[in-house]
Amino acid sequence: MLQSDSTQSHHKIGAAEILEAFTRLPTGDAEAVRKFRTRDTVLTKPPGSLGRLESLASWMAEWQGHYPPRAEKILTLVFAGNHGVVAQGVAAYPQAVTAQMVANFAGGGAAINQICKTHGLDLVVIPLCLDHPTGDMTQVPAMSESEINEAMTTRWHAIPFGADLVCIGEMGIGNTTIAAALCCALFGGDPSAWVGPGTGVDAAGVARKADAVARALALHRMALNSPLDILRHLGGRELAAMFAAVISARMKRVPVLIDGYVASAAAAIAHAINSSALSHCQIAHCSAEPGHRLLAEELGKTPIVDLGMRLGEASGAAPVASIVRAAVNLHNGMATFESANVSNKS
Amino acid sequence: MLQSDSTQSHHKIGAAEILEAFTRLPTGDAEAVRKFRTRDTVLTKPPGSLGRLESLASWMAEWQGHYPPRAEKILTLVFAGNHGVVAQGVAAYPQAVTAQMVANFAGGGAAINQICKTHGLDLVVIPLCLDHPTGDMTQVPAMSESEINEAMTTRWHAIPFGADLVCIGEMGIGNTTIAAALCCALFGGDPSAWVGPGTGVDAAGVARKADAVARALALHRMALNSPLDILRHLGGRELAAMFAAVISARMKRVPVLIDGYVASAAAAIAHAINSSALSHCQIAHCSAEPGHRLLAEELGKTPIVDLGMRLGEASGAAPVASIVRAAVNLHNGMATFESANVSNKS
Repeated sequence: MLQSDSTQSHHKIGAAEILEAFTRLPTGDAEAVRKFRTRDTVLTKPPGSLGRLESLASWMAEWQGHYPPRAEKILTLVFAGNHGVVAQGVAAYPQAVTAQMVANFAGGGAAINQICKTHGLDLVVIPLCLDHPTGDMTQVPAMSESEINEAMTTRWHAIPFGADLVCIGEMGIGNTTIAAALCCALFGGDPSAWVGPGTGVDAAGVARKADAVARALALHRMALNSPLDILRHLGGRELAAMFAAVISARMKRVPVLIDGYVASAAAAIAHAINSSALSHCQIAHCSAEPGHRLLAEELGKTPIVDLGMRLGEASGAAPVASIVRAAVNLHNGMATFESANVSNKS
Repeated sequence: MLQSDSTQSHHKIGAAEILEAFTRLPTGDAEAVRKFRTRDTVLTKPPGSLGRLESLASWMAEWQGHYPPRAEKILTLVFAGNHGVVAQGVAAYPQAVTAQMVANFAGGGAAINQICKTHGLDLVVIPLCLDHPTGDMTQVPAMSESEINEAMTTRWHAIPFGADLVCIGEMGIGNTTIAAALCCALFGGDPSAWVGPGTGVDAAGVARKADAVARALALHRMALNSPLDILRHLGGRELAAMFAAVISARMKRVPVLIDGYVASAAAAIAHAINSSALSHCQIAHCSAEPGHRLLAEELGKTPIVDLGMRLGEASGAAPVASIVRAAVNLHNGMATFESANVSNKS
């Protein structure tokens, strides 16, 4: 497990550069898809019989921009942040747990460590100024311009050129409330539709979450003029980082598995800027957090699995990465009817 | 890939021995489950947040009969058979494809080979008298007493003591028609509810499948007095073998991932004999073959994933085995709140 140094120096990528990237998003590689289909039809299986595994392998080729697709170097990124809104009683665990869990990731003891070890995935954890939580969105903007730019900049560089697939997830006490606020601002609806138990708050806690979302939206209503305004005012750093990472991956032709509710809410900012910005992304699993199902529908995505998980840490995306790897290996490794001397459909 | 020699000599296990086994099915290990729960509550995650991965790991301990559960030695078994009923025009591929695909398995070129290689699973393919298809169920009983006993006997021994998990799947041109016939005999309903496109027959082919099922049930109606009668008259060998393998696994305390429609239909015979006989089994995935969803409901099972697959070969079970492996490794490898110095719920 590598731990990224969040203080490392890089070329700065701010809001202007990110928005500029949206004007030149790479499109899917139609030639790679054509090559995929040509070979897929002669593999020793009935056409279409591998279902979603076929479409996932095709999607990998399309967004990697080369054929055959590859699925060896798979990177799991976990972005961690802290949130002023926990002062509103929205979280089941104390804020100190975010940093404690980052230490747990470094020590190999967390859920995501076991999953990455099982499936041979790289893991990088990126803590973002954990000692300086973002502003409480019910009182002030979550981030200043320089804070959101800093969160986006260093995270832009978290996506390595040449990765075959990245899983994007997060850890941050209180961040399902942030996700709910973003969704409510982007898609409307009652705050109660977007909040849920998160890591395990009771009914009163869920009500406090809905109330915090409603108050934040009311407070900032005149300032929420663009998706990036919404992101800056409601927070938080790890969401800004995931938003930047998703677009960075697109520019670098790295397909993305989005983990759960919070990661999907961050990606929704990109979708709001350009509805084709998430074509290189799949939602890996449907979280048990109730807002995630609604959000996946808004994004036009069908989660690949539904295992009732609600942990975060990319723990829902990483097992699915092993399924995507199998999908790619199926396409690349299977025999053809001709090479295996198998009779085709009569 | 090992290929089992179906002519190998073993202690004979016939219908009488199988039925006797049903009188002494091992129950789940409550002590292993208790130990599982004790540790699960102190792992560094909110209670329940790993969803089905937690219940799968607990199920592994319960049915392996020891704690901690293990998920290293995972075996994929593919049973292959041929069916006289293909004379009724129920299959999209010629019967020769069954043996050709067995050769493809041996050569490493089939879908299941790539999946097992990706996930580090052992693969054993068991062809059953492919040169002697079972009788056409629309004309005669599919198997004689000695034929079904032979199919069950050698397959009983296919389950090794000490495996941590087995995936059970099949290959056999025409066998979705056999599965539909078994389901119709066991659970009733119109044959059209249980047939589907299989590997890709057209609407006329689906109608021929329903007709073949209806005629077979009418022909044998006086003889279908027990689940084993149903299995013998409707067939086929690989289904008898899978039925025996499921019960053999129970006796040897090996949890089972059942693949798709045909494997589930074989397991349904065991369920009809004793409705608790499949407690050590999970249905790995929901097949795109429409009868599978109905069958899973009849068996009281929720498939773990739904990827739109309909290939057979245990290709739906094997990717899920890697998820079960992750589930077990999560439980065994994660740190506790105390060991990782993480604050628990406030």
